[in-house]
Amino acid sequence: MSLFHGLSAFPITPSDDAGIVDTDNLGQLVARVCDAKVDSVGLLGSTGTYAYLTRAQRQRAVAAASEIVGDTPLIVGVGALRTDDVIDLAKDAQASGADALLLAPVSYTPLTQEEALTHYTAVAASTDLPICIYNNPGTTHFNFGLPLLQQLAAVPNIAAVKMPLPAGDLGEDLAQLRASLPADFAIGYSGDWGCGDALLTGADTWYSVLGGILPKQAMALTRAAQAGDADATSAQNAALEPLWALFKEHGSLRVAYAIAHHLNLTTALPPRPILPLGSEVEARVVAALGALEV
Amino acid sequence: MSLFHGLSAFPITPSDDAGIVDTDNLGQLVARVCDAKVDSVGLLGSTGTYAYLTRAQRQRAVAAASEIVGDTPLIVGVGALRTDDVIDLAKDAQASGADALLLAPVSYTPLTQEEALTHYTAVAASTDLPICIYNNPGTTHFNFGLPLLQQLAAVPNIAAVKMPLPAGDLGEDLAQLRASLPADFAIGYSGDWGCGDALLTGADTWYSVLGGILPKQAMALTRAAQAGDADATSAQNAALEPLWALFKEHGSLRVAYAIAHHLNLTTALPPRPILPLGSEVEARVVAALGALEV
Repeated sequence: MSLFHGLSAFPITPSDDAGIVDTDNLGQLVARVCDAKVDSVGLLGSTGTYAYLTRAQRQRAVAAASEIVGDTPLIVGVGALRTDDVIDLAKDAQASGADALLLAPVSYTPLTQEEALTHYTAVAASTDLPICIYNNPGTTHFNFGLPLLQQLAAVPNIAAVKMPLPAGDLGEDLAQLRASLPADFAIGYSGDWGCGDALLTGADTWYSVLGGILPKQAMALTRAAQAGDADATSAQNAALEPLWALFKEHGSLRVAYAIAHHLNLTTALPPRPILPLGSEVEARVVAALGALEV
Repeated sequence: MSLFHGLSAFPITPSDDAGIVDTDNLGQLVARVCDAKVDSVGLLGSTGTYAYLTRAQRQRAVAAASEIVGDTPLIVGVGALRTDDVIDLAKDAQASGADALLLAPVSYTPLTQEEALTHYTAVAASTDLPICIYNNPGTTHFNFGLPLLQQLAAVPNIAAVKMPLPAGDLGEDLAQLRASLPADFAIGYSGDWGCGDALLTGADTWYSVLGGILPKQAMALTRAAQAGDADATSAQNAALEPLWALFKEHGSLRVAYAIAHHLNLTTALPPRPILPLGSEVEARVVAALGALEV
């Protein structure tokens, strides 16, 4: 089985005001998700604020996590604006113990499909690690056409894609991707509120913010969906609905920090200019957690 | 008069494959625009690929340009993802000779209006220089609400805004901004194909890619529009229409590099993953220049 399967848990990366990663605290957060037997750790994803951290801090984070994960696969986000910087980050990640890479088409000048193809193939050629395409238009504002995904899937070590939830029917989206991409190419989704259903529909992977901060709850939903238990999936989604609403309204990153604060898992704040949630929204987060008996 | 007026010319920043700025070549490009008597130089704008350059390279670029500009005001882009990094860049720019700063709300995690307000006020408090708000949703994907612009315009050293061309009527857009913002707050536009008309309609400033690479042509259009000569503005716009079409289709950054290559002004390429235009599009650029007798 591909290492891109099941629940991939994306923790926050605690850092101080100057962007220095608290590697002890990060290790605690990584141990928490590994204790819950998640299928992989997604370090330095969007929730892990990779875009806001320097190369040196990202390497420190990977080294710290790799000491903790044991047999749990460690997938590391290596996105950056410049192709040469991504290649450096990929080399650092491999040298520091990553098992796989997650690569978003980070952009400032909007990229063409050809530019993304050239970027991904250059990075893939620079590493031995398998790569997951991080298709996240909400942050990168890049849209992968199906022809581009097919070209990328033909690159030997590009092995998976992390898709956003589609605007339309997820079953149709997944069926079209399955019909267009190699049989062994792993197809997963992010957007926690739709990912139980995505697994139930046959997606390989849930790339999860919830999994990084409430891994037991995310694992329970994952296993219910993987077992094909639609009723249990629906019931667990219903219990999580107050959190899903907060994720959609305020961004899952800000809510993940609020959860971590409430559970005394960190005192770190998101990197400025991102602000912590105000007290009214925090109270809603606490109420949502109370209903989950967290 | 505010230093934010007339034609602000945005040159490319020539750099090598590793992102090292060629300061001699940059100086030549800056001298070219100053020779054309532009009203200001917009260094390290989107066209100057500021987002792709390190702090050290950005400081080298500012220092090199400030030696060349003489009395022409030097406006320097200081956008970055992290607030602390922007503050460092603002201090560097001031120390290296900038006369004003241009600040875009660069984002990865989409920012709230409050986060942008906090970001701008923190940066404004860290510098003595006047700041122009760089409202560029095509690259930052942040949209400034009018209440936010009003809050920012109340900060003493936030003195100007660079607006994108509106989807609707420019005259209405400008009238609404004038009615909402202080009388001495400078309102300018970018999007070269609409900026002659913007000046004709009474905008203070044209923030111009064309001005950075074909400054004489941009100055002629600027002066015609500022004189209220609608016929001359229209005629010059018509002559530039083939270039405007290329800007819209391929991004003005890529076209600016192609123009610079054709005129033997640089051999530098845009930073990867951005690719130079293919030969077919380059031929269209050359044809467009031929019609202008450049």
